[in-house]
Amino acid sequence: MRVRSLAMAKAPIITPQGEDFPRWYQDVLNKAQLAENGPVRGTMVIRPYAYAIWERMVSEMDARIKAAGAQNAYFPLFIPENYLQREAEHVEGFSPELAVVTHGGGKELEEPVVVRPTSETVIGEYMSKWIQSYRDLPLLLNQWANVVRWELRPRLFLRTSEFLWQEGHCAHASQADAAAYADRILREVYEDFMVNELAIPVFTGRKIPEERFAGAINTLSCEAMMRDGKALQMGTSHELGQNFARAFDIGYQDENGERQLCWTTSWGTSTRMMGGLIMAHGDDRGLLVPPRIAAVQAVVILVKDDDAGAVGDSTRRIGAELAAAGVRVKVDDAASTPFGRRATDWELKGVPVRIEVGPRDLAENLVTVVRRDTGEKFPVALNELTVKVAGLLEEIQSSMLSEATARRDAATVTVNSIGEAVEAAATGFARIPFDLLADGGVDELGRSAVTVRCLQLEDGSTPVEDHAPGAIALVARSY
Amino acid sequence: MRVRSLAMAKAPIITPQGEDFPRWYQDVLNKAQLAENGPVRGTMVIRPYAYAIWERMVSEMDARIKAAGAQNAYFPLFIPENYLQREAEHVEGFSPELAVVTHGGGKELEEPVVVRPTSETVIGEYMSKWIQSYRDLPLLLNQWANVVRWELRPRLFLRTSEFLWQEGHCAHASQADAAAYADRILREVYEDFMVNELAIPVFTGRKIPEERFAGAINTLSCEAMMRDGKALQMGTSHELGQNFARAFDIGYQDENGERQLCWTTSWGTSTRMMGGLIMAHGDDRGLLVPPRIAAVQAVVILVKDDDAGAVGDSTRRIGAELAAAGVRVKVDDAASTPFGRRATDWELKGVPVRIEVGPRDLAENLVTVVRRDTGEKFPVALNELTVKVAGLLEEIQSSMLSEATARRDAATVTVNSIGEAVEAAATGFARIPFDLLADGGVDELGRSAVTVRCLQLEDGSTPVEDHAPGAIALVARSY
Repeated sequence: MRVRSLAMAKAPIITPQGEDFPRWYQDVLNKAQLAENGPVRGTMVIRPYAYAIWERMVSEMDARIKAAGAQNAYFPLFIPENYLQREAEHVEGFSPELAVVTHGGGKELEEPVVVRPTSETVIGEYMSKWIQSYRDLPLLLNQWANVVRWELRPRLFLRTSEFLWQEGHCAHASQADAAAYADRILREVYEDFMVNELAIPVFTGRKIPEERFAGAINTLSCEAMMRDGKALQMGTSHELGQNFARAFDIGYQDENGERQLCWTTSWGTSTRMMGGLIMAHGDDRGLLVPPRIAAVQAVVILVKDDDAGAVGDSTRRIGAELAAAGVRVKVDDAASTPFGRRATDWELKGVPVRIEVGPRDLAENLVTVVRRDTGEKFPVALNELTVKVAGLLEEIQSSMLSEATARRDAATVTVNSIGEAVEAAATGFARIPFDLLADGGVDELGRSAVTVRCLQLEDGSTPVEDHAPGAIALVARSY
Repeated sequence: MRVRSLAMAKAPIITPQGEDFPRWYQDVLNKAQLAENGPVRGTMVIRPYAYAIWERMVSEMDARIKAAGAQNAYFPLFIPENYLQREAEHVEGFSPELAVVTHGGGKELEEPVVVRPTSETVIGEYMSKWIQSYRDLPLLLNQWANVVRWELRPRLFLRTSEFLWQEGHCAHASQADAAAYADRILREVYEDFMVNELAIPVFTGRKIPEERFAGAINTLSCEAMMRDGKALQMGTSHELGQNFARAFDIGYQDENGERQLCWTTSWGTSTRMMGGLIMAHGDDRGLLVPPRIAAVQAVVILVKDDDAGAVGDSTRRIGAELAAAGVRVKVDDAASTPFGRRATDWELKGVPVRIEVGPRDLAENLVTVVRRDTGEKFPVALNELTVKVAGLLEEIQSSMLSEATARRDAATVTVNSIGEAVEAAATGFARIPFDLLADGGVDELGRSAVTVRCLQLEDGSTPVEDHAPGAIALVARSY
């Protein structure tokens, strides 16, 4: 264990966001012990503190997925190469990113298998077996799994060669049913989760054809603003039309005994949301985790023990009381490490509430409570602590959402020319009539690294066709 | 939808166990819609009904793992080939089973990567970075993941090329700490889970050297008896000595400032437990799921509706009441399918309690309750149903454990010769003094496909060395 001098402890811990945002992101990942690069290029190690947050994301998202009627299942990691080739756009889109297994059990395989980049094809094969009649529809499946897409410019959580995700795959009787379900997932599952659990406001809308999922006829997405003004696509929901139904013969007998092709949908969110969480809320002191998704909602820190060890005992008792009241709490009584360094560490880890227990306060039956989001610090009477902490966690949750919404809205402007859009995208989002991008405007934006994130109608609703009159394009630089 | 005649419904649904146990197993997998073969040899599709049971296993196991102090994390699927080669026994053991990725992103890779068969090596690499001081020990990690071991004779759930599992990986300061933790996991996590949740009694003990994990100095295991008298290894916990610590330089500075090597452990259980669940409890009517692990604990079946639909309404109301009382319940009001066929289906799926709602019973404020395990059928007054069902679920859980224990114990005999052991293993387990196997006895058993499952001492405790005086070998045919 290297001894850290006080001078080191006072040195800037992380690069300020305003100085170098990508370096700030890397610093937070390292210093808060969230993730590291894996040994194989583009892969990622998710460390326990970050994984515990991911587990909460999974649990909250999974509950919403089940409430939307989908059932979890598990399909194989390995997919025969020929499956991908059955849908032309799909194979074209994914071929450059595939990892291919050529040897198994010490022998060269007769047909190479790909490591799933997504599972429309293999799940399509089984849907085709399982669906016979209109009574079997809709078939609503979801799986939690790892997928692999070889990345040339990997970035932890945002773009990694292997990532963890959920992928929903459904078969419906009609195009209308498919469209309605794709939209339902976007709103009731994804948007609801992002807003109410992650405290991240999202714009929802329709992707332009160039930005669709490979094989989809319509891709809907949730787009969030990071603290550097760039957009992050947080989740997508696709109508696949009858493309995969045709390729995998997913059909049913309707009420009149006629054979019909299904309409399929797919939808996904991934560990990318961890990147979104970090960049949407984090500040120059580090990560900031919204209470509902925090694995540690409150930390009880022993400032300094007395000779009898009574302050340490109180610290642990306070922790136990909060835990019994349902708060996800951690006790830090490691008094051999200087208090200041421990406090800074918990701040860096973004724990929403810090409770400092020291001899002087305790003599007056008080503790000091610190809000991570605002930095406010105030004394709380011991007998009011549990109630106070519960209230504070709710307050921080809603305040984080308001703050993120205010930041986003302040950095989203309506413009009427491509030049203005590019200028606005230097610091945030621009809304521009899609008509203005008709003749090469999308390419022109692209030359300034600005892309159309999604299309909305004036009232924020989603256009149901590619060239809806009056559509507004939301444009931004993006991850 | 093909019409099924009554004659078909009466035909035997599954092969009786006594006639052909492997076919019975396949029939249960198919008819109860548990799993299917994947398109790539040896892979598996886990269907929603089985996956929901697996989710409950994960949740119960995960709680015990966390209670034992381990934290979840996630490490990459892909491991550089050279990592495996650093531990000689490990690479020798796993080489024949590896799947190798040679191409990524459209190019041949400079160094092929293997798809993890287990993660000691890659996790060892990170432990080496993360552990500096004795204060960082023990480091207790676990991950839920998929792994790949190429299988030449795959069998759904029991031996598949890809399977889902948890793998714990820990570093300790001393051999004694490592041994104690490996044993703690075996008992407090694995045995406790298997006995109390799965209602499967297990023998625990030490593997003989030939049966150890590749790279371990000691492997402990839980061995259960299936209904055909064969053994299934349900989980293992390994002391890895300093083998991986040496290979990956996992060390720490002790309290005197001296550099020491760690002692590591690893431990795992997998979707194989689903196979164990099916074969330990299932009978000629199909699957039988213990209430605590059942995704569906009770099914409320509408026998036949009346013209006004009142019986259907009651069926749904009873379901809602049970759900509100915390019972995991399913309502089956699909009256267009004959009642008998639906009842048989739920029996096949092993739902512990069936509640039949018909017009005649209902007129007297009664329903008919059927226990899946014993087949007992009795009327229950509506106003007593919730309490009755809750009690019945507990009773079935404990009765299933007693039954499984009685079956196992009746089929476990103590013998004093290899010949008797082979004879006993035709229908169950044999306990034989390990000394009797000293001179080629293990090989002799092997010629009759009988193996040493584990070693125990007379009192059932685990020997702490390979040749403990008085050790008893538990031998059996096995999966």
